[in-house]
Amino acid sequence: MSHPYFKDIPKIAFEGAESENPFAFKHYDKSKVLLGKTMEEHLRVAVCYWHSFCWDGFDVFGGGTFNRPWHGSVNDNQAALAKLDAAFSFFDKLGNPYFCFHDTDVMAAAETPREHVENFRFIVDAIEEKMDSAKVDLLWGTANMFSHPRYMAGASTNPDPEVVAFSALQVKEALEATHRLGGSGYVLWGGREGYDTILNTNVKQEMDQLGRFLNMTVEHKHKIGFKGDIWIEPKPHEPTKHQYDRDVATVYGFLKEYGLENEVGVNIEPNHATLAGHSFEHEVEMANAFGIFGSIDFNRGDPQNGWDTDQFPNDLRENTMALYYILKGGGFKNGGANFDAKVRRQSRDGEDLFHAHIGGMDLLARALENAVTLIESEKLSSFVEDRYAGWNTGVGEKMMDGSMDLDAMAAHALAQNVSPEPRSGRQEFLENIVTAATR
Amino acid sequence: MSHPYFKDIPKIAFEGAESENPFAFKHYDKSKVLLGKTMEEHLRVAVCYWHSFCWDGFDVFGGGTFNRPWHGSVNDNQAALAKLDAAFSFFDKLGNPYFCFHDTDVMAAAETPREHVENFRFIVDAIEEKMDSAKVDLLWGTANMFSHPRYMAGASTNPDPEVVAFSALQVKEALEATHRLGGSGYVLWGGREGYDTILNTNVKQEMDQLGRFLNMTVEHKHKIGFKGDIWIEPKPHEPTKHQYDRDVATVYGFLKEYGLENEVGVNIEPNHATLAGHSFEHEVEMANAFGIFGSIDFNRGDPQNGWDTDQFPNDLRENTMALYYILKGGGFKNGGANFDAKVRRQSRDGEDLFHAHIGGMDLLARALENAVTLIESEKLSSFVEDRYAGWNTGVGEKMMDGSMDLDAMAAHALAQNVSPEPRSGRQEFLENIVTAATR
Amino acid sequence: MSHPYFKDIPKIAFEGAESENPFAFKHYDKSKVLLGKTMEEHLRVAVCYWHSFCWDGFDVFGGGTFNRPWHGSVNDNQAALAKLDAAFSFFDKLGNPYFCFHDTDVMAAAETPREHVENFRFIVDAIEEKMDSAKVDLLWGTANMFSHPRYMAGASTNPDPEVVAFSALQVKEALEATHRLGGSGYVLWGGREGYDTILNTNVKQEMDQLGRFLNMTVEHKHKIGFKGDIWIEPKPHEPTKHQYDRDVATVYGFLKEYGLENEVGVNIEPNHATLAGHSFEHEVEMANAFGIFGSIDFNRGDPQNGWDTDQFPNDLRENTMALYYILKGGGFKNGGANFDAKVRRQSRDGEDLFHAHIGGMDLLARALENAVTLIESEKLSSFVEDRYAGWNTGVGEKMMDGSMDLDAMAAHALAQNVSPEPRSGRQEFLENIVTAATR
Amino acid sequence: MSHPYFKDIPKIAFEGAESENPFAFKHYDKSKVLLGKTMEEHLRVAVCYWHSFCWDGFDVFGGGTFNRPWHGSVNDNQAALAKLDAAFSFFDKLGNPYFCFHDTDVMAAAETPREHVENFRFIVDAIEEKMDSAKVDLLWGTANMFSHPRYMAGASTNPDPEVVAFSALQVKEALEATHRLGGSGYVLWGGREGYDTILNTNVKQEMDQLGRFLNMTVEHKHKIGFKGDIWIEPKPHEPTKHQYDRDVATVYGFLKEYGLENEVGVNIEPNHATLAGHSFEHEVEMANAFGIFGSIDFNRGDPQNGWDTDQFPNDLRENTMALYYILKGGGFKNGGANFDAKVRRQSRDGEDLFHAHIGGMDLLARALENAVTLIESEKLSSFVEDRYAGWNTGVGEKMMDGSMDLDAMAAHALAQNVSPEPRSGRQEFLENIVTAATR
Repeated sequence: MSHPYFKDIPKIAFEGAESENPFAFKHYDKSKVLLGKTMEEHLRVAVCYWHSFCWDGFDVFGGGTFNRPWHGSVNDNQAALAKLDAAFSFFDKLGNPYFCFHDTDVMAAAETPREHVENFRFIVDAIEEKMDSAKVDLLWGTANMFSHPRYMAGASTNPDPEVVAFSALQVKEALEATHRLGGSGYVLWGGREGYDTILNTNVKQEMDQLGRFLNMTVEHKHKIGFKGDIWIEPKPHEPTKHQYDRDVATVYGFLKEYGLENEVGVNIEPNHATLAGHSFEHEVEMANAFGIFGSIDFNRGDPQNGWDTDQFPNDLRENTMALYYILKGGGFKNGGANFDAKVRRQSRDGEDLFHAHIGGMDLLARALENAVTLIESEKLSSFVEDRYAGWNTGVGEKMMDGSMDLDAMAAHALAQNVSPEPRSGRQEFLENIVTAATR
Repeated sequence: MSHPYFKDIPKIAFEGAESENPFAFKHYDKSKVLLGKTMEEHLRVAVCYWHSFCWDGFDVFGGGTFNRPWHGSVNDNQAALAKLDAAFSFFDKLGNPYFCFHDTDVMAAAETPREHVENFRFIVDAIEEKMDSAKVDLLWGTANMFSHPRYMAGASTNPDPEVVAFSALQVKEALEATHRLGGSGYVLWGGREGYDTILNTNVKQEMDQLGRFLNMTVEHKHKIGFKGDIWIEPKPHEPTKHQYDRDVATVYGFLKEYGLENEVGVNIEPNHATLAGHSFEHEVEMANAFGIFGSIDFNRGDPQNGWDTDQFPNDLRENTMALYYILKGGGFKNGGANFDAKVRRQSRDGEDLFHAHIGGMDLLARALENAVTLIESEKLSSFVEDRYAGWNTGVGEKMMDGSMDLDAMAAHALAQNVSPEPRSGRQEFLENIVTAATR
Repeated sequence: MSHPYFKDIPKIAFEGAESENPFAFKHYDKSKVLLGKTMEEHLRVAVCYWHSFCWDGFDVFGGGTFNRPWHGSVNDNQAALAKLDAAFSFFDKLGNPYFCFHDTDVMAAAETPREHVENFRFIVDAIEEKMDSAKVDLLWGTANMFSHPRYMAGASTNPDPEVVAFSALQVKEALEATHRLGGSGYVLWGGREGYDTILNTNVKQEMDQLGRFLNMTVEHKHKIGFKGDIWIEPKPHEPTKHQYDRDVATVYGFLKEYGLENEVGVNIEPNHATLAGHSFEHEVEMANAFGIFGSIDFNRGDPQNGWDTDQFPNDLRENTMALYYILKGGGFKNGGANFDAKVRRQSRDGEDLFHAHIGGMDLLARALENAVTLIESEKLSSFVEDRYAGWNTGVGEKMMDGSMDLDAMAAHALAQNVSPEPRSGRQEFLENIVTAATR
Repeated sequence: MSHPYFKDIPKIAFEGAESENPFAFKHYDKSKVLLGKTMEEHLRVAVCYWHSFCWDGFDVFGGGTFNRPWHGSVNDNQAALAKLDAAFSFFDKLGNPYFCFHDTDVMAAAETPREHVENFRFIVDAIEEKMDSAKVDLLWGTANMFSHPRYMAGASTNPDPEVVAFSALQVKEALEATHRLGGSGYVLWGGREGYDTILNTNVKQEMDQLGRFLNMTVEHKHKIGFKGDIWIEPKPHEPTKHQYDRDVATVYGFLKEYGLENEVGVNIEPNHATLAGHSFEHEVEMANAFGIFGSIDFNRGDPQNGWDTDQFPNDLRENTMALYYILKGGGFKNGGANFDAKVRRQSRDGEDLFHAHIGGMDLLARALENAVTLIESEKLSSFVEDRYAGWNTGVGEKMMDGSMDLDAMAAHALAQNVSPEPRSGRQEFLENIVTAATR
């Protein structure tokens, strides 16, 4: 493979914890076996196209700062091919097994439906060709239905059915391309599926549109024989004031309402979790509880800033906890660890992309090892099992199986006539176990 | 009626907007008719027992500051009767049509199940007698299953089935008392139905317990013939780190999961809404969209502080918007406007309770009048209707009725081959309409 | 004056509270006299150049949505002149007495120092000419030292002295232009005067640079004979993780540290106040307390979203309170009411700019009238005066004038030997006064 | 020493990282030498009296849950002595070198000034006697001037001078006791030195009172010959809506205003830092920059909850960073690592106090070792030094020493006539260094 970009960066190899080489993995040893699977199989690491190869470093207060030689002045097919070269060159050096993309990340700009189809299919052909000779697979695909001005009032929730028709075209094309490129998932993040002001919004109508659109997508998946999963990515707000897919519990209620709880799962992002007022592990465990866990967009937010900062993960404890609950739920199946994370605006060089991804992959490797330690020790799980043991027998069992009703339970309390003695929750003891495992 | 307390406070009368008498209503004119109902019938104002007659002004950083002559050193039956006198004296002077209570607000302290039943039934008898000669009705009742140490790890979600049995007894007694006293609603706020740390918690087990317990409560309601409504009160956290009934959308998903969406509604509190990251009106409109709107615990939080401040409402615009959506959804039926609000810790005198309630009732009266203006002018509703008109015909209608699928919608977009022109959402224009109506 | 833009919009006239004409003022009656000054003189309303004439509606998740005929594809001198026409056409129709600008708002794009000077001076000439025949004056000017990539690591706090030299050039030019165009203030908002990560930052060095730079600016002001004020605009973060000028109290400490507290004041923005965890009126009153109140960038944030939304103000109570404290502090002198506010991204039409500004000006007019009512009634001020009356005599006076020390105060307490009885703070009573005045 | 309490808990010994004994230190090896000092000398760990020996587990929503055999029904001298026994028994088993207390933590309840003095002096005698035979020293003392109802409107900022006189008595007694017991610091946390509503508050007057009071305290320190430090503990709010000592920068401005910047430092609490919108390390580094770093109240907040949770620290990265900046600033002198942290309300047993403190001390030990690694490697510090090297020569040096003014800097920019090329901030590279050191 030729490397038009990142010429000075070596292939990233595993060198062990004591290596001081910034361009080497210290912990991500893809072949290391834990709980019967390799680290690579556990984590299924993906690099995302948008933050690393499309974004130029602009923010709301200033223009692009990045030194990205593949960025031209116009976004035509040639520019799309240059970006593709850059991406695959990066994948080759980093050694990530997967990548993820939006339709508009990879393709030349398009205004009309026909241009969209033409430009997208052109680049999907090129991606397919690239993948033939590369060691990277597609984790999941998606359609960007929030950046173009036509989507300013939403995609499937737009008041204008013609905009929804354009969305349908994008989803059809992106889902079919994902299928063709061997992706194992398809994600819907409804960036503008919400409202800027409730004053101009029919909330019920918009949720019904979203429910119908998601059903159409699921039907189409089956029609084309796509065996992968479909996941919604919860986020509470930003860019909208309010987004309908706020968090895992809200998404689950939505899926139940529209009969989709067995067809659709969630792609959880920690920075979205924290914006919604939840810890990362909470969202994972809620998805486990509802049976809709799918995939993760690993990143982190800034605990002092109130917007989506999409930083690379560096909190070992947080990611240890998340991976513990992911493993407890059975681990990734079709999903994986996509880095939906961007280098900071001041990290303008190509090498910064490597520092970020190496740091992220090493962190996940350590978190995985920690999580395996916690799983294997059973210190946490046996404590929890013991704490709820009362529900397997006696009044606990009878209440849950329906053989005792409110009257019966009340009568039981009166017959016992005691105020039950509370039992320590041992929070600090359990936290010490996690701290000790966080290495 | 004798007035052992609040001797110096006159009966609060309506004197009109220009009155400068702090002990008079300037806007709450209970007999004024709007949209075919009196203001009193629209608002169904309730005073809550706990904040006004039980709380002594303590907070986490300091002890009780209030001058409450009915507070004795021990909470026995005599103290409970004194508190009852104070409450009904207050109701008589204020003229509120309703009140609300928790079991433990009204009764003498109890440790064992039998003491609980004995003390509670003693005071319910006394309340019934008081109500015979008073002009105040019960809006709703509830059981406090979060203050006693036995509930430190939750009530119906407690790991110990014996604690759940005690909860069952409290709910049975409180529900039956509510029925007997003519209440039109029964509320469950799960103050500790969540977790302090996910490390010691089986989330799925606890949600199943909560679902089963709520089903038992609904069955019991039908068994005893209670015709009122049952409402869950959403809150995201505090005192727990996480509460299962986070917000309206989460509660709806929970109700769907446990087959309760036609049996149980929500009691919305604005301060809980804002803690959960929602505007007050959002929660009302979500409850309308899901068909589970029930009642309101009117109060306000502090936008700069991150805990439940439970202040009396004073934001005219916010309450205008909330009442607009309440009216649009059909207004209160069994629910009403309960002031789940407390005077500040420095507002230590009896007269401060009057300033707070008079201010709150006047505010709701103004907000109601504003909301009626907005409803009658149809400026907002006709704008919204027009914005979504496309869904009543053509591809919009066909997508929603299922006659067009993803392929068909995509084909339509290709056939049209245009990028739809976006249309202004006119947010500032609509906000100006609300501002103008906020008087 | 010719009107190449906004052709269909009439001149905005005052029509009174009952007017239903969306293109008329209902409350902003510029000639109405209150407390001896006209409404226009009190408020000194300014339109800002950047949000209304430069921004194209882009956000982090999507491209420009606005229909702005004066936006061309390149930002050259001709484009700058077209924008100038649009701005002055808008001012003429709206009737705002003032405007505000950044250097880069008004000028053609420039890369090098010489281009910067050339392009900026070209347009300043044009502005001066426009102003000759228009009824609008300059409230204040400023330099944009955060948007160009060279400023990605700060302007005066940049690690590279060459970047600071470029900043010096921009400030010199912008300050001199402000002086020449008759502005009465000059603002410094340090958008990137902070850090993205403390790991690469020498906090002390950067604060020293900022202090020195501000001193240089003040010296230059005196050197050129500018009689207006210099104001810092506090903001806690965004785009940076942390900004040195967090809030009014932080700025005051900074001014004291660098000997500037008598030379520099603050330009307060309510959305920055709330991001910093303060109410709008708090920041005004803190500036009064420190004697550094200058000007206001009126807007509002979204209480549920954690970033700078810069929405037009529509909260009558909040602005009533702010104007009450502004009047109590003596009102605007060189400062005024600049609308640092932007229409929503979906408000894409020229008419939306008018709805927004008309709504904002009417709101400030109502808030001003309410504030005057509060000032004139003296209900709030006399309560406060009475509450602190103890400090004018006895031990209070003696402690403050230094004649009693800790020992003496302690001895006094022992001699009195009582625990002082607390006195109600009457918060709800005072809030009712504000509510009643909010009309 | 007899151990009436904690009978079943062994003395806590260092057993090394591989120990699985929950009642042993795995990392806190007090004699281990790092950078020339023992771990014990570096950290100066203190246990606080209030959370561990006074609090009964109550919160705003419920009563005390703790099993504390030394808590009696009345808080008289005998109860105070029992609590003292419990505390010193705990200290003896844990082996902490220091403790901290408020006057009201240790003493019997008192209403009048004379009772206060009598009860406080009684227990200070007893503490002194205990300390004679124990291995624990006093780190710092303080006076609780926020819990008693008399302080509901503040202590030194109270509108009533008589309350301020009572405060003066408490501070005098507590400062003198701290001196007598060999404490090396005295802390002022102004829990209610702020306002609940700005409507009833004279902000300037209250800050002047606070400034005068602090000056009186400093004068008294010198008068009695106390050689230790005086520290203010910043907090933004809670219990008040707003507290004057918001954060380190605000406190510094306040100290400058009242001439105290060379006399008073700060006691930083991470949970207060995060409530104020700052990271822990930010507050440490700001205190270093201003030269007012004093001591730390180690704890942590909950990133999803908006109140002071005062949890024991368990975030290794956060504490590594904080200790890195503490060491960079020269380490603790008179200050130390006080655990202002409380076990969770469900952690009701005595052993939970040990889990919490052992976990906290082990965490600080690991964080200290990590911080030493970072200091010794100089990877961070040399990067920062290099980044700002331009300020040591040329225009950078000349601007800072005053030999170049705004005109000169602008002229330099014009002469160079280039837009300086930005240089990567290498944030991810630097974060990887910290991640690697976090073990």
